[in-house]
Amino acid sequence: MMRGNLLVGQSGGCTAVINQTLAGVIEEARRQKNIASCLGMRNGIEGVLRNTFVTLDDLTRDDMTRLKNTPSSALGSCRYKITDADCAGILKRFKQKNIRYLLLVGGNDTALTSLTLSEYAQKNNYPLQVIALPKTIDNDLPCMDHTPGYGSNARFIAYTTQEAGKDTEAMRLVDPIKIIEVMGRNSGWLVAAAALGKKSPKDAPHLLYFPERPFDMQSFLADVTAVYEKIGYAVVVMSETVRDKDGRRIGERTEGVTKDRFGHPYVDSVGAILSRAVEAKLGVRARFDKPGTIQRMSMPYISPVDQREAYAVGKKAVQLAVQGKTGVIVTLERVSNDPYRVKTGYVPVGHIAGIEKYLPASFINKKGNFVTKKFIDYARPLVGELPDFIRL
Amino acid sequence: MMRGNLLVGQSGGCTAVINQTLAGVIEEARRQKNIASCLGMRNGIEGVLRNTFVTLDDLTRDDMTRLKNTPSSALGSCRYKITDADCAGILKRFKQKNIRYLLLVGGNDTALTSLTLSEYAQKNNYPLQVIALPKTIDNDLPCMDHTPGYGSNARFIAYTTQEAGKDTEAMRLVDPIKIIEVMGRNSGWLVAAAALGKKSPKDAPHLLYFPERPFDMQSFLADVTAVYEKIGYAVVVMSETVRDKDGRRIGERTEGVTKDRFGHPYVDSVGAILSRAVEAKLGVRARFDKPGTIQRMSMPYISPVDQREAYAVGKKAVQLAVQGKTGVIVTLERVSNDPYRVKTGYVPVGHIAGIEKYLPASFINKKGNFVTKKFIDYARPLVGELPDFIRL
Repeated sequence: MMRGNLLVGQSGGCTAVINQTLAGVIEEARRQKNIASCLGMRNGIEGVLRNTFVTLDDLTRDDMTRLKNTPSSALGSCRYKITDADCAGILKRFKQKNIRYLLLVGGNDTALTSLTLSEYAQKNNYPLQVIALPKTIDNDLPCMDHTPGYGSNARFIAYTTQEAGKDTEAMRLVDPIKIIEVMGRNSGWLVAAAALGKKSPKDAPHLLYFPERPFDMQSFLADVTAVYEKIGYAVVVMSETVRDKDGRRIGERTEGVTKDRFGHPYVDSVGAILSRAVEAKLGVRARFDKPGTIQRMSMPYISPVDQREAYAVGKKAVQLAVQGKTGVIVTLERVSNDPYRVKTGYVPVGHIAGIEKYLPASFINKKGNFVTKKFIDYARPLVGELPDFIRL
Repeated sequence: MMRGNLLVGQSGGCTAVINQTLAGVIEEARRQKNIASCLGMRNGIEGVLRNTFVTLDDLTRDDMTRLKNTPSSALGSCRYKITDADCAGILKRFKQKNIRYLLLVGGNDTALTSLTLSEYAQKNNYPLQVIALPKTIDNDLPCMDHTPGYGSNARFIAYTTQEAGKDTEAMRLVDPIKIIEVMGRNSGWLVAAAALGKKSPKDAPHLLYFPERPFDMQSFLADVTAVYEKIGYAVVVMSETVRDKDGRRIGERTEGVTKDRFGHPYVDSVGAILSRAVEAKLGVRARFDKPGTIQRMSMPYISPVDQREAYAVGKKAVQLAVQGKTGVIVTLERVSNDPYRVKTGYVPVGHIAGIEKYLPASFINKKGNFVTKKFIDYARPLVGELPDFIRL
């Protein structure tokens, strides 16, 4: 391969381990003699358009340790869809800076950007190895067992549901109902993870609601009532994006001002709305927790498995690039489940661009309000150790 | 002292270390020859009224380790104000069970219950040593340096604000504003803690709003705008109970159904309301996080200092009881700040019952939107280690 510089960027929502991937890239790039210098773009591909780069060559060993333990995207992120006009400018900049290796860490939109740039470079006879690196808490990318970032966010959800569950159980005479609203875009992988620490019927969570199933208010209230009447409290975990049978998000406003100035619908917190509905139905207090971005940034809850794999993905991407691969995305493939073993691989990035992976039907129970053992078997190895709380 | 049984209960909101206090009580009680048996009441004083007790004598060493690492109130909690009529029934039960030592772990309401029962027993010539043990994430009890439970919740807020701050900084081209809504009843101790990890002006948090200061929407929007225009993003931490100059909570509904069936006002999430107001003003997206009960239950974010002190408070209470004290509450007194050293003490429980301790004026800056160095010096030793994130 031609000797040249490597440029790496991060885009889309942040995770607790995306900087592990960046560290894997930097450290592997230093080992490769065909890579002269390692550069980062600030705020993803927007950094190329704005000409804001940062050199990663002089990060010390101590800096690298800090980088690995810093959540979010240390290079900054973006959500920007490149146009054809952008491509010419980007390629010009690459030539100026002798960029021969382009690594983009992100989700679905980033995969599309990689594809576009890989094809554009080839059409213009510019030798550029473009590798996409998966990253998303949502775990919604196809063609891979799971995505880096998912395990840590899943562990946050599993662990805090056990913890918040102990709170609700202790406070059952005061605030017997809790609703926890979690992320996950259009898929229920994170909601499902809430069940990973559950050992007995009294343990939280008791009910889960996924974006994959239409949400029905009457069934929901009946479900919560049944759990409350049986054990005296109930912990519900749900996706912030649950939708009714007509595809309308719960909390989407239908009266007054319904959209912001960019035309995005105003959506009220589903936890706020449903806790209120439960209070009206049961006449007892319902609380809601919305960990928001905390769930995806938390270092103390991080999954060591996820951390290791995120690093391995970074390393693999550099190796693929110097082997002359382009237009591919790194994947994680499960070799065995017990003991859990994974290896890195790759597929053409076109295979995943624009496709979302939902929870398969076999992972959701018949009533659509809990996971199956099959999901637990799949996800349990991804989150590392979970606590073993006592019940007196 | 007379040989008899010890009864312990937990009430009010849960914390991550209240079971450390319980463990301190159990382990110290086992060492005292005047204490025959150690019993717990389920769900605080309501457990006595309902005659639901649990023996704590047969917890093994392994159980004790698990208990110390289980958040919430392992005995269950309550918020119940005892009546005069209740007192007779309670005393009768104590006589039946030969309860000579009564230990109640809780906040202000629990202190009042201890006082009532201590006085009632004395009036009826029943030898009963009643000791209150402080516990509240809110840190709002007078006559002590701080309360067990505060340090751990404060560490959660300090740490996750640093983390969520990194998210906002990385995502500034997409979601540049973040509002984090935290607990703390009528005082701003937890909001203030958000600033403990801040090292530079770019670090989160940038603005804090306390229940001790009237909240003014126009000043708030001007503050956020100024930060956003200067650095391109802003992280705001605020109390869920901020009030306007007329004492009305932000989010308290004024139209339609304004109260629930018990007459409690409906209050919408302040984070939801203010993020919407910022979006309308600045035309950029604002997110809000509401860690809710997760903040007070989190074990991975626990403060080791808080953990140790909570245990020491449990131990001290048993010692005071067997020394014949009654109607007192255990306190934590700071002996020195550097190195940080604390000792346990006690004051008459009447000194604290019904009194809330607010952030002193010297801990809040002139504009009422941040803390002073004085607060940092006070609170920094309580939370243990905080992370040192990198900025590239």
